[in-house]
Amino acid sequence: MENRNKLVWRAGNMLYPVPAVMVSCQKENEKPNIITVAWAGTVNSDPAMVSISVRPSRFSHEIIEATGEFVINLTTADLVRACDFCGVKSGRDTDKFKEMHLTPGKAEFVSCPLIEESPVNIECRVEGKMDLGTHTMFIARVLAVQVDEKYVDRSGVLRMDQMELVSYSHGEYYKIGKRLGRFGFSVKKKRGHKNDLKKGNGKR
Amino acid sequence: MENRNKLVWRAGNMLYPVPAVMVSCQKENEKPNIITVAWAGTVNSDPAMVSISVRPSRFSHEIIEATGEFVINLTTADLVRACDFCGVKSGRDTDKFKEMHLTPGKAEFVSCPLIEESPVNIECRVEGKMDLGTHTMFIARVLAVQVDEKYVDRSGVLRMDQMELVSYSHGEYYKIGKRLGRFGFSVKKKRGHKNDLKKGNGKR
Repeated sequence: MENRNKLVWRAGNMLYPVPAVMVSCQKENEKPNIITVAWAGTVNSDPAMVSISVRPSRFSHEIIEATGEFVINLTTADLVRACDFCGVKSGRDTDKFKEMHLTPGKAEFVSCPLIEESPVNIECRVEGKMDLGTHTMFIARVLAVQVDEKYVDRSGVLRMDQMELVSYSHGEYYKIGKRLGRFGFSVKKKRGHKNDLKKGNGKR
Repeated sequence: MENRNKLVWRAGNMLYPVPAVMVSCQKENEKPNIITVAWAGTVNSDPAMVSISVRPSRFSHEIIEATGEFVINLTTADLVRACDFCGVKSGRDTDKFKEMHLTPGKAEFVSCPLIEESPVNIECRVEGKMDLGTHTMFIARVLAVQVDEKYVDRSGVLRMDQMELVSYSHGEYYKIGKRLGRFGFSVKKKRGHKNDLKKGNGKR
């Protein structure tokens, strides 16, 4: 038990890579907005639940508080400029859908729009929130997921590997890179049957 | 406002890519353990706070509940096999540090060990928890971060881009890929001064 070559730094945000998702929201009879969120993730498998953390000063914070609804839109390499723009600019003085040439699409279970150009749209309803300091963490239930049918193959499998999804690490956006293995690969028998794969079917 | 080419699926865990971090923990006078967690992320910037979601059936769940402490160890491509193994096997019948030839290192502010082979170790103390269904979400404060000095350049900058960090997407592990831009790049002036960069210094 000896520390080798480690520097002890003060507390900071060092958990990377994280997602960089575009969250869409809208108040009734007002224009829709988009905010990019990197402090986002899944927090429960069943029911599917997510969390997003948003600063109270942000335009979208008030919208999400008032409506209790939002859509998480996954970011692809093609969308990274829009993703960055929606994280930097404020909806108070910008129509982000218009500026970024994005198309508001109809969600099934929430009133706010999804982003058509994003291949995966996660419709969410807020179930709780916690004020943690700089950010409010909204905890939300996933109501439905919309997926672009061009990424669903003939067997009905979603080919997320073909979406060129984006992650965010220490101030930089990155395309997803080389595949290293499937969940469960470290214990998979070398000459196993197809069924062996099922054990490691992404269960978290 | 029209849906084109979108299929509506039932609710599910579709927020990707997410991190796949190795969480180390230990009860006094017992062997240390490691659990891999993909439902993890940053939830507050200042103070730096994270959340990890763990199934109550997991061996580590009881350890973290009892001690209120854990360390998040970032996963590199070299560590992906250990990462997968620690997500599949149980500490009830495996000594994961020993099996994966990992070295427990001394943390500064918590009693449980960090993983020496991981380049970034985030020491955390639990401040709250929520039972959400299949998982308990532990909300924790970051107390300190240890970084491998070989990734700190002469200017004192942490070169996280050289770590080959791993993310997890829809059942697969991936190496981080091509860099697409720095936070704020979409609004940066083309002939701007160095100072322009400061505006977008990774603030979330």
